[in-house]
Amino acid sequence: MAVYTDVSADELDAFVAGYAIGDVLAYKGIAEGVENSNYLLHTEAGHFILTLYEKRVEPRDLPFFLGLMEHLAGRGITCPTPLHDRAGQALGRLAGRPAAIVTFLDGMWIKRPAPDHCAALGTEMARMHLAAGDFAMRRDNALSVAGWRPLYEAAAARADEVLGGLADEISAELDYLEANWPADLPRGIIHADLFPDNVFFLRDRLSGLIDFYFACNDIIAYDLAICLNAWCFEADLAFNITKARALLAAYVAVRPFSPREFEALPLLARGAALRFLLTRLNDWLNVPDGALVRPKDPIEYVKKLRFHQTVASSREYGLDP
Amino acid sequence: MAVYTDVSADELDAFVAGYAIGDVLAYKGIAEGVENSNYLLHTEAGHFILTLYEKRVEPRDLPFFLGLMEHLAGRGITCPTPLHDRAGQALGRLAGRPAAIVTFLDGMWIKRPAPDHCAALGTEMARMHLAAGDFAMRRDNALSVAGWRPLYEAAAARADEVLGGLADEISAELDYLEANWPADLPRGIIHADLFPDNVFFLRDRLSGLIDFYFACNDIIAYDLAICLNAWCFEADLAFNITKARALLAAYVAVRPFSPREFEALPLLARGAALRFLLTRLNDWLNVPDGALVRPKDPIEYVKKLRFHQTVASSREYGLDP
Repeated sequence: MAVYTDVSADELDAFVAGYAIGDVLAYKGIAEGVENSNYLLHTEAGHFILTLYEKRVEPRDLPFFLGLMEHLAGRGITCPTPLHDRAGQALGRLAGRPAAIVTFLDGMWIKRPAPDHCAALGTEMARMHLAAGDFAMRRDNALSVAGWRPLYEAAAARADEVLGGLADEISAELDYLEANWPADLPRGIIHADLFPDNVFFLRDRLSGLIDFYFACNDIIAYDLAICLNAWCFEADLAFNITKARALLAAYVAVRPFSPREFEALPLLARGAALRFLLTRLNDWLNVPDGALVRPKDPIEYVKKLRFHQTVASSREYGLDP
Repeated sequence: MAVYTDVSADELDAFVAGYAIGDVLAYKGIAEGVENSNYLLHTEAGHFILTLYEKRVEPRDLPFFLGLMEHLAGRGITCPTPLHDRAGQALGRLAGRPAAIVTFLDGMWIKRPAPDHCAALGTEMARMHLAAGDFAMRRDNALSVAGWRPLYEAAAARADEVLGGLADEISAELDYLEANWPADLPRGIIHADLFPDNVFFLRDRLSGLIDFYFACNDIIAYDLAICLNAWCFEADLAFNITKARALLAAYVAVRPFSPREFEALPLLARGAALRFLLTRLNDWLNVPDGALVRPKDPIEYVKKLRFHQTVASSREYGLDP
């Protein structure tokens, strides 16, 4: 959580004058998102989120992200929707950064999701995958299987500082996943980061999805594999099959799995666990001096990976074929 | 800027249920204030600020701060106004902290105030001093002259790390101010921290004062001395007499100075400079490991102090007797 770029009132007034949303009445930097600077913006036309894109986001990817949000919103998926300025552009520049204004979504994320929340997520994720089916742009997933070995190599020499034997454990898993990663599963646009803090609820009703800045083209079922990891483990890292069943059953009721997707899910869940293990491990080993953001513990994902290694079939996630 | 205490949606729902403002629709931690955790809160009744008071605020001072804001708001000073819960209380507890909900103020602070902004500040500060005249509670200023020597002693051994000779320079100034600090000036309630980021404007009209968490009983003109330091120096630390004249003339048009106040202002300005020099120096020398807040440069206030040491009369601030 951070605001990396300060925006003065004068700069902001000039930027907002380019949109048909009236004068700025107030803005506050919000402590949300580790990648970008976000401001809550109050203008004569209402409340919005102003995002300044910081260094970890590739400027050339921004038209994909903003276009996707607009495409999904147009198909009934509630998500932040970029405003267009008077020249028709969704992407502008402010304080030396690419910047966009999006609609403000009510809702709160759930710290301890219950099975009903998992079911609501499954339904909405399936709707999102279907709604994205005719989105014309594409963006490869830099954090899919081909991206994992470089992350491993960057961290290998120091991985055992985090946990004895971790470098070898990752190396073996990486060899296995590279050899066995499925090439023939249905592909499409996935969110790729649907952790609980990116899913808003209002009184137990899912009210919106946010933070599409990892969205990409990849194996569609991999999005579910990420959520099995992010939503279905308890705080003590016990796997909650009731939550997994709720998530998966709600999903396949909207977008049924093919037999190959059903079969591949444990492998995809291992891959998803390794992906977050590797990025967290690198963040953990490379905290910059004076960092404002505390990195997340990589060990959590070691334990999740080990769980999925014991899973022989998607039945063990509570899913019927 | 920081959010020190995380609040879960469940905790917040329960807390807000104690107020007659409907259900919570959204809340975001805002990157504002170095003393407390602040959330922007959207409920069915509108937008509010939720503040959790952290360790640097004395819980026993909170009734004074909240009572003052309510008192001032009732007398036409635009400032955050505490809501009362269904039991009539303005102060509650949330996530293990004292907490309050206050009204949301539109407006933005001005990074480079012009003379007109200084004049608007002078008018409003005088109105605030008059409006606080019949506020019944009191709170001594722990950061007035009696509080400076302990701050000096805490920093003396290491002050020269910041600037060669600084310990001796502060020591001499402290001796002088302790011997000459005026005892007979009009006293009342002052804000004591009216820096530009605590004064909101909308289209060059002053729209509100915020952050009353240093407010206290002290010499009334000392509030102006703080603002001479905070508003009337340029980025290169040149003193801008046009701004000072605008601030002071607007102030005395609402609340005229007594001859003794006129005479004492340069001394009060030295005191105000020393007070912020001392707190910044201590913050600078005592940055905790993993701190989320970068301390402000104390040298700025060394230079401001030296300027006021050269001022023989309030005429040099542009003020006519």
